[in-house]
Amino acid sequence: MTDAYAELETRFGRMNALSEAGGVLNWDMATLMPAGGAEARSEQLAALQVTCHQMMTDPKMAELFENAQAKGDQLSSWQAANLKEMRRQWLHATAVPERLVEQISRATNRCELAWREARPENDFQKVKPHLQEVLDLTREAGQAKADALGLGVYDALLDQFEPGFSSQRIDEIFGRLAQWLPETLPRVLEKQRSQTPPQRPEGPFPQAKQEQLGKRLMQAVGFNFSHGRLDVSLHPFCGGVPDDLRITTRYDESDFTSAILGVLHETGHAMYERNLPADWRRQPVGEARGMALHESQSLLIEMQACRSADFIQFMAPIAQETFAGSGPAWEPHNLYRLATQVEPDFIRVDADEVTYPAHVILRYRLETALIAGDMSLDDLPGAWNDGMRDLLGITPPEDRLGCLQDIHWFDGAFGYFPTYTLGALAAAQLFEAATTAHPEIPQHLRQGDFSTLLAWLRTNVHSLGSSLTTDEILERATGAKLDETVFQRHIQRRYLDD
Amino acid sequence: MTDAYAELETRFGRMNALSEAGGVLNWDMATLMPAGGAEARSEQLAALQVTCHQMMTDPKMAELFENAQAKGDQLSSWQAANLKEMRRQWLHATAVPERLVEQISRATNRCELAWREARPENDFQKVKPHLQEVLDLTREAGQAKADALGLGVYDALLDQFEPGFSSQRIDEIFGRLAQWLPETLPRVLEKQRSQTPPQRPEGPFPQAKQEQLGKRLMQAVGFNFSHGRLDVSLHPFCGGVPDDLRITTRYDESDFTSAILGVLHETGHAMYERNLPADWRRQPVGEARGMALHESQSLLIEMQACRSADFIQFMAPIAQETFAGSGPAWEPHNLYRLATQVEPDFIRVDADEVTYPAHVILRYRLETALIAGDMSLDDLPGAWNDGMRDLLGITPPEDRLGCLQDIHWFDGAFGYFPTYTLGALAAAQLFEAATTAHPEIPQHLRQGDFSTLLAWLRTNVHSLGSSLTTDEILERATGAKLDETVFQRHIQRRYLDD
Repeated sequence: MTDAYAELETRFGRMNALSEAGGVLNWDMATLMPAGGAEARSEQLAALQVTCHQMMTDPKMAELFENAQAKGDQLSSWQAANLKEMRRQWLHATAVPERLVEQISRATNRCELAWREARPENDFQKVKPHLQEVLDLTREAGQAKADALGLGVYDALLDQFEPGFSSQRIDEIFGRLAQWLPETLPRVLEKQRSQTPPQRPEGPFPQAKQEQLGKRLMQAVGFNFSHGRLDVSLHPFCGGVPDDLRITTRYDESDFTSAILGVLHETGHAMYERNLPADWRRQPVGEARGMALHESQSLLIEMQACRSADFIQFMAPIAQETFAGSGPAWEPHNLYRLATQVEPDFIRVDADEVTYPAHVILRYRLETALIAGDMSLDDLPGAWNDGMRDLLGITPPEDRLGCLQDIHWFDGAFGYFPTYTLGALAAAQLFEAATTAHPEIPQHLRQGDFSTLLAWLRTNVHSLGSSLTTDEILERATGAKLDETVFQRHIQRRYLDD
Repeated sequence: MTDAYAELETRFGRMNALSEAGGVLNWDMATLMPAGGAEARSEQLAALQVTCHQMMTDPKMAELFENAQAKGDQLSSWQAANLKEMRRQWLHATAVPERLVEQISRATNRCELAWREARPENDFQKVKPHLQEVLDLTREAGQAKADALGLGVYDALLDQFEPGFSSQRIDEIFGRLAQWLPETLPRVLEKQRSQTPPQRPEGPFPQAKQEQLGKRLMQAVGFNFSHGRLDVSLHPFCGGVPDDLRITTRYDESDFTSAILGVLHETGHAMYERNLPADWRRQPVGEARGMALHESQSLLIEMQACRSADFIQFMAPIAQETFAGSGPAWEPHNLYRLATQVEPDFIRVDADEVTYPAHVILRYRLETALIAGDMSLDDLPGAWNDGMRDLLGITPPEDRLGCLQDIHWFDGAFGYFPTYTLGALAAAQLFEAATTAHPEIPQHLRQGDFSTLLAWLRTNVHSLGSSLTTDEILERATGAKLDETVFQRHIQRRYLDD
């Protein structure tokens, strides 16, 4: 280890500690903060971001990177990988001027708060000027990054979330999926229509009971409540840090499955964070590899494991006991059929895994057009509705079921959406590889025992942090880079063969 | 306004925003954080403190202060007062080397967490090494500040909490109180023993009901829940920022008065923060003047206003309704007598206002001895118990009722304790002045209407921020500097004359 490298570790450790503090503030803002605290909270978050940005853009950093790289042969392989990731983050940060960083922080905070009001009020016009501000600033930042990294503007934004991926590659994968989907979806729907419809257990399902069930299932997956919490927010997320994970959900007392499967989804994210290499806390190489792999972990737990007939065999009697339910609606096979119902619908987060890619392809098309300047926000609600009709054959009757439903753009996250479907593809690849290596996994899930699955994921994904690329991790674990074939096989097996 | 002054405002604004972020993290740690998050939280808090310290000790600051002061005649009176406060804080901060700041942050976090375990386990030995570390580091920092400010070590620590006060002045005031107390307390106790004892309403008092009552009374005082919350922590406090105030309390289901009066106490702190000058948010002159004046606001609300027979006339029927109580124990006069019972006891936070100064005098004597190096921590539990016996005639049977009861030393706050009693004296002075100016205040309190009292406090204390000294504020509002005479008159009136 060299002095310059050690100094970089110290600096990144401190920056990441400050950024963790921002994470706590964001969690608090989404879960507990009274409305009147918004203005002060924006100031606090802006100060944290500007401070980190100043540390990152300190003129001494260039020299430190130069000196550390000159003695690169004295570094261990993890240190070398850390240096590479530090440099990548530094290049991203130095591309954007400090003024713009501060403007973006304030604008996204304002816009997110406006969205919190506009969505229940179904009032896109109310949030549009805030979103326009966020979009303009994002395009400006994207252009600055594009210039610095030698990428297109959208690819520069994408690179923040999924390093090494490109819109060209997404165009190819999404192109094949967009071709496959219209062939597959009607066959799935036709098969389901030929069967007796599953029955919905009758509510109400009190929030406290749902929370109790959620916590019990989180523990089954391996979540340790000495290192995390479960709370309520409008848009579910997994925040916090590896040793203090803050999962949130929202409850609907007429349907417990939405919250419970949401909780299991976030638990998948949480287990990735929890099992990241402890020796590299607050260092770039110790972070999760990227958003596609992160989403693969949540979807692997939610979609691959917890919506399997095996796991539902375990969950059904616990749910029945929790809600004092009775009758055929509570039979495992009925609950399994409910958990795998396919139905084109307006809301992405409630979508089944067959129609989900259509939601993402729509958003990907719209956000690439917005970033390229090919579409204005005035046209967004209409284009959204047209896209839904084209892809899934349904038209949202109001914007809160359309372009107001997701927090992402209002929070400044352009270039993020594609990672959901890239994650779904990776989840299928990883789950197939895990069950090939350990054919007893389905039987274990039937007993609520996730230990074998989690141990495999820890070894093959979690503990690697960012020491390898997403494709390297997938190739090492499954024998193939990211692609759609295993996902398509999974859909064929679960929805058409069975 | 000059460029140098404007740059100082920007820098202090950012430092205070970071320090506010630390406040949210501390609140979260005390209320919600799972135990496993402690290590990461320490890193986050340390990073925030070091960052602020680095900003404060930036070599450019000396130049900025020099330039701003050279053009001091171009500043408004508030700007001049702000510059004076900025400079005072800067002198405090630059005295302590960065290494020591970081060590103190880590040590106090560790020590506070150890205390959280040691107190319920009644195990002083378990926390002693951590407290020793905190004490050693505090003495080192105090010596550094003493050298820089030209003060004694204890006075330099005191100056952090109550600028401009000295141990010499405290010795005088506490000396007179320590003389008055043994003459007065026996007479109060004797008078009470001659009366039929008041009856305690019978519990249990469910936590949720206590919270409901607490929130209702907070609102009566003027607390706005769009700008704050009420939560639970081991040691009650008022955290947060003026626009997002985080009050905490702890509940005892066998006695509702402890939590309710605690909540009202913290509400007094909160109203001070809430009414600080909004134009000076995150600037030193916009902050509360000092801890004595802060405590005066909580004690004015709790002791002067809410334990008065007038307010209890308002509160009694609401409390009775909340807990569905019945019988003579719920009569206002009985509840008033309960709220003004005097009884030497072990726990400071539960102490009545007559014996409270004895608790503070004890801690003041012990901490001055610890800081001076005249006493070792080995002797602390014994010295504590001896002091209690000398001052109040009772001996704590175990350390959790003795030297383990308060968080302060374990959290590094040496020099803080005297401000409690200085605050009690100021509270009596201010309440007497307010009711002299507005003789209708007692009648308003009887109707649960705090608006006249709060308006007077806002004008005469809150809105002044740190633009004047504590003595200047008191002299302007009451005609006299801080002293014990009005407090003694208040005790005489409430406990002996009536």
